[in-house]
Amino acid sequence: MKSFASDNNAGVHPGIMAALDACNEEHVVGYGDDIYTKKAIKTFKSFFNDQTDVFFVYGGTGANVLAISSVCSSFESVICAQSAHINVDECGAPEKFSGAKLVDIPVPNGKLTPELIKPSLHGFDFEHHSQPKLISISQPTELGTVYTLDELKALRQLADAYNMYIHIDGARIANAAVYLGCSFKEMTIDCGIDVCSFGGNKNGLMFGEALLFFNKKISQKFKYIRKQAMQLHSKMRYISAQFDEYLQSALWKKNALHSNKMAGLLLTEIQKFSQIKVTQKVETNAIFVTLPKDVISKIQKESFFYDWNEHIGEVRWMTAFDTSEQDIENFVNILRKYLK
Amino acid sequence: MKSFASDNNAGVHPGIMAALDACNEEHVVGYGDDIYTKKAIKTFKSFFNDQTDVFFVYGGTGANVLAISSVCSSFESVICAQSAHINVDECGAPEKFSGAKLVDIPVPNGKLTPELIKPSLHGFDFEHHSQPKLISISQPTELGTVYTLDELKALRQLADAYNMYIHIDGARIANAAVYLGCSFKEMTIDCGIDVCSFGGNKNGLMFGEALLFFNKKISQKFKYIRKQAMQLHSKMRYISAQFDEYLQSALWKKNALHSNKMAGLLLTEIQKFSQIKVTQKVETNAIFVTLPKDVISKIQKESFFYDWNEHIGEVRWMTAFDTSEQDIENFVNILRKYLK
Amino acid sequence: MKSFASDNNAGVHPGIMAALDACNEEHVVGYGDDIYTKKAIKTFKSFFNDQTDVFFVYGGTGANVLAISSVCSSFESVICAQSAHINVDECGAPEKFSGAKLVDIPVPNGKLTPELIKPSLHGFDFEHHSQPKLISISQPTELGTVYTLDELKALRQLADAYNMYIHIDGARIANAAVYLGCSFKEMTIDCGIDVCSFGGNKNGLMFGEALLFFNKKISQKFKYIRKQAMQLHSKMRYISAQFDEYLQSALWKKNALHSNKMAGLLLTEIQKFSQIKVTQKVETNAIFVTLPKDVISKIQKESFFYDWNEHIGEVRWMTAFDTSEQDIENFVNILRKYLK
Amino acid sequence: MKSFASDNNAGVHPGIMAALDACNEEHVVGYGDDIYTKKAIKTFKSFFNDQTDVFFVYGGTGANVLAISSVCSSFESVICAQSAHINVDECGAPEKFSGAKLVDIPVPNGKLTPELIKPSLHGFDFEHHSQPKLISISQPTELGTVYTLDELKALRQLADAYNMYIHIDGARIANAAVYLGCSFKEMTIDCGIDVCSFGGNKNGLMFGEALLFFNKKISQKFKYIRKQAMQLHSKMRYISAQFDEYLQSALWKKNALHSNKMAGLLLTEIQKFSQIKVTQKVETNAIFVTLPKDVISKIQKESFFYDWNEHIGEVRWMTAFDTSEQDIENFVNILRKYLK
Repeated sequence: MKSFASDNNAGVHPGIMAALDACNEEHVVGYGDDIYTKKAIKTFKSFFNDQTDVFFVYGGTGANVLAISSVCSSFESVICAQSAHINVDECGAPEKFSGAKLVDIPVPNGKLTPELIKPSLHGFDFEHHSQPKLISISQPTELGTVYTLDELKALRQLADAYNMYIHIDGARIANAAVYLGCSFKEMTIDCGIDVCSFGGNKNGLMFGEALLFFNKKISQKFKYIRKQAMQLHSKMRYISAQFDEYLQSALWKKNALHSNKMAGLLLTEIQKFSQIKVTQKVETNAIFVTLPKDVISKIQKESFFYDWNEHIGEVRWMTAFDTSEQDIENFVNILRKYLK
Repeated sequence: MKSFASDNNAGVHPGIMAALDACNEEHVVGYGDDIYTKKAIKTFKSFFNDQTDVFFVYGGTGANVLAISSVCSSFESVICAQSAHINVDECGAPEKFSGAKLVDIPVPNGKLTPELIKPSLHGFDFEHHSQPKLISISQPTELGTVYTLDELKALRQLADAYNMYIHIDGARIANAAVYLGCSFKEMTIDCGIDVCSFGGNKNGLMFGEALLFFNKKISQKFKYIRKQAMQLHSKMRYISAQFDEYLQSALWKKNALHSNKMAGLLLTEIQKFSQIKVTQKVETNAIFVTLPKDVISKIQKESFFYDWNEHIGEVRWMTAFDTSEQDIENFVNILRKYLK
Repeated sequence: MKSFASDNNAGVHPGIMAALDACNEEHVVGYGDDIYTKKAIKTFKSFFNDQTDVFFVYGGTGANVLAISSVCSSFESVICAQSAHINVDECGAPEKFSGAKLVDIPVPNGKLTPELIKPSLHGFDFEHHSQPKLISISQPTELGTVYTLDELKALRQLADAYNMYIHIDGARIANAAVYLGCSFKEMTIDCGIDVCSFGGNKNGLMFGEALLFFNKKISQKFKYIRKQAMQLHSKMRYISAQFDEYLQSALWKKNALHSNKMAGLLLTEIQKFSQIKVTQKVETNAIFVTLPKDVISKIQKESFFYDWNEHIGEVRWMTAFDTSEQDIENFVNILRKYLK
Repeated sequence: MKSFASDNNAGVHPGIMAALDACNEEHVVGYGDDIYTKKAIKTFKSFFNDQTDVFFVYGGTGANVLAISSVCSSFESVICAQSAHINVDECGAPEKFSGAKLVDIPVPNGKLTPELIKPSLHGFDFEHHSQPKLISISQPTELGTVYTLDELKALRQLADAYNMYIHIDGARIANAAVYLGCSFKEMTIDCGIDVCSFGGNKNGLMFGEALLFFNKKISQKFKYIRKQAMQLHSKMRYISAQFDEYLQSALWKKNALHSNKMAGLLLTEIQKFSQIKVTQKVETNAIFVTLPKDVISKIQKESFFYDWNEHIGEVRWMTAFDTSEQDIENFVNILRKYLK
């Protein structure tokens, strides 16, 4: 039985394995100057636009930290949600590498709004104060919620007013796109996003992440930042080939639709339990619920998942591209053993 | 035809591809708490010893920089060869992440000796001076040469006298081991090495590098350093499974023996050219030669390789695990076109 | 007329000028190996204890950042009040230099409590999470309030339970000591404080700050940290002589008593204005009040002071060691012009 | 008797003490927005030009490190002499704070030349290589030698060819200016220097250093860098007033002329000793000599000075603004006791 712990517990999609095999021929120059990487970049441009600068890095933390480092000088600051991955799950990597300050804002549903951000936008031109320069949001958020296009555009308007940039942590960006039913371009470039961490590991890839710059002001020197940040892979083709397949074959969409759908299915089932309270809107592939505290560990022993907030007995259940209806049925059966 | 540009231009060995396929089943917990990683760590311990602490990271630059960060405070320094990869090929990554100073020493053949190092060992306890703390060597060196076991032990003796640590950059460590005809343990633990970057990408792996600590004083907090340095892979099994196969099946040895042998073959052939002068001892899979400057670019156009020292017309030719005798014959035919 | 903008707007006390003159003789060795520095360290030890390690740095930001760097690895975190100087007034210096994360906690009166801190003490041993290592408090706080000895001891108990350290930002530590009527030792060592930034600039000194370590585990390598942090003064005697005089002559107490007293006097006066609302307890030499927004800038034009919270019309008034009763009378006269 | 250990062992010139007293009146706004700082900046501009951006910091290490941080991104490098203060005497502060790499070049007399630098100017546009961006020289050098104006202009020409900047570490810049008999402007702006650490502590000041930018491209964000680097003094007037007096009263010239002259006098005397060999041209206030190793420590016990190169028995003697002819006579008498 597959777990509901995290979508990164899933394996690699067979289509990706095949793409890795397919590129495993002959010698090619290292570090990205190869046909597979050129092709993948071209494919990315076709999904975004021709002005998009595409760089591959090793993983999500690297992509996020390097996005910050590309935009911010060390004396500048990043506005983010208190629940943001960059704020709570990267062991201080953003601060260590960029030197910039993270200004984290409590948000009930994972989403920043202009109203929530504004009180933190002060001290401009005052050298004692880290200068606000970047708004970093997660799409979908760490709570599974999704910014609407209008919400993204409202952030852009705010950023414009303060000469700031916007970064999307898109670790699960495909799940957001299929939820909104829009293209990647509509959700990024058309909303005025400047830079996007485009992830795939949680949706069937093996390793690697793409960092996409939609604003050439911040990408000019990026190749040096990537190398110095230990994020330049020598045998680059094995990242590129995955992303090319992922986009070309619409695997991103198929897998994201599936995991979102499975979350919907699980949601339907758990709504039948009076003791389970859903705490966040289920818009992608994560479900947050509270359970009686005494049964949480019992259920975890049979099928592991993570505590989210131990104080209130909140846990997270995630579906993946390979979650089956049978997996859900099995899990619900376990729930049934311990809950009325 | 395969190039002689670099062993990292080669693809992934079929045995490694098979291992990746084999581990691609079901869900496992991310970040290394999985059966594949546990097995790979156990295998590494069997090749080194039970006290060895094994951590997987994304790549060689990451392994080297994190080895330095584990040993050195920012006010300490690293003694290395002027030709060391950490000194010339990592875009300042060691300085940026660790804050430590690199003290680079000119070495004719890539190898440090106690005599070459000693003049840099001064200023101890003097707060104006970065405190020497780590000797970092490459085995084999960037010039293809190999430290003998006695040479390694002599460095250990020096390090002991100054309370210093020793790091091996083992990007091609297998090639050194087969050259010396010794085990990995004999070349590291038995010579008093403290920490080793154990690479495989240049010998048939896809991605990932192991960082091996033989001294528990410096590994206690490493898991945090790895995460903060953006080097913790979520789907860890895909690194672990490669290394497990690489060691268990003796692929490391088979591939390294082959590439070393191919270098020997190429060496034999080029010694027939009076215009080619071999500038370094050929002990592993790299050959450094000088050529008439006017023909270098012509040959590169037919089969790409890197300039090493443009001032003197020095270039590097490398063989790989998949270099064939036919590849060498083809390359020598090209040489023959331009050289007497 | 003297302003009520900040105690750092005041000049240098004549006694300190005299001490600077007195040490201005002959040659002495630089960087602290001189009789004036040895004497000042001895004096500090007599005020704290013999085990105290005393280091002089250039200023308060340096002292705070270096205290953090002495305690925390970059993957560890600092718990502090949201209003802490290190969090809002040092342009990200702590993050930049130490790499550590600041976890800031909203506090109504500038003071942290175990209850406020506890929700942030989680994720221990979890490599994705910056490890909480240091509690940094300001005594008095940036809001002029003072931790009681019992409150300090309660923080120590919490720190012990989590294997953490405590730092005091004592930019105005003398004002806290005279408010509590206790010795410096009672307020630090006896409460289990580990390291203290001991300031004097706001109380009559010209430049320099002392960093006092009460825990030898964190001071062993400090001399290197200080030098690398650009905080080692060559002509050290000119810092040492100031602090020696400041302590020996009880100038610290005389000046702090005076500025606290002047704040009390001003408080009495402003309580007569119905339009002025005091927002924080006045325990040292700072007064926080709200005023009708439309008169703030008018008053500032006649006697400058800083806005604290523009949204609610809150401003800060500070007294200094040289504030006179006449200064207060003059200021109150200005207030009277604009307020009923 | 005054020592010949270092010019920073001297005290503060009485004229500077008087200037400190003179500015010690009333309240002024902190952090540089005061009349004394405005006046000092105006004075500096009159010595350089109106476009010069003037910032005061705490000391020489801070000035040098911040000059580097203003020019270089972390993936860029600084070309400097192996004997440069930034390379050997700042405990790795430049690397730690800027993240940039120092490329140090052996120089026999402390002076870089285009010929010496050129071999290090490679790898441009190659992301594996730290990009050369700044040439940092010391004027006078750490060996007491002085770049001629032509030598400076030759470096400018080189820098132009590679799109690089030039920094002067002017810890003893006055001694160089009086040696060359030129103005500060002729030695900096007119030679195309971009940024200069302008020191005074070694020539009679108490604390503080000026960082002068002659190129507005690199000074725009400097105020934030200074604050984040813990180099912004709150009671700024006490740095400004010193520099204003130092320049206005021509104290810089008087003191530098005197210490240079005293070095010349000492040189004349020691040339009478056959066992003393002068190893560097004496152009400012430093004399480097070799002595029989067995007598060095004996002489040091009577009058302390620093070893420079213990291997060859080389030591450094420095004169200061307050060195008297009697001091020299006394010192020569000591030499006479131990040397023929």
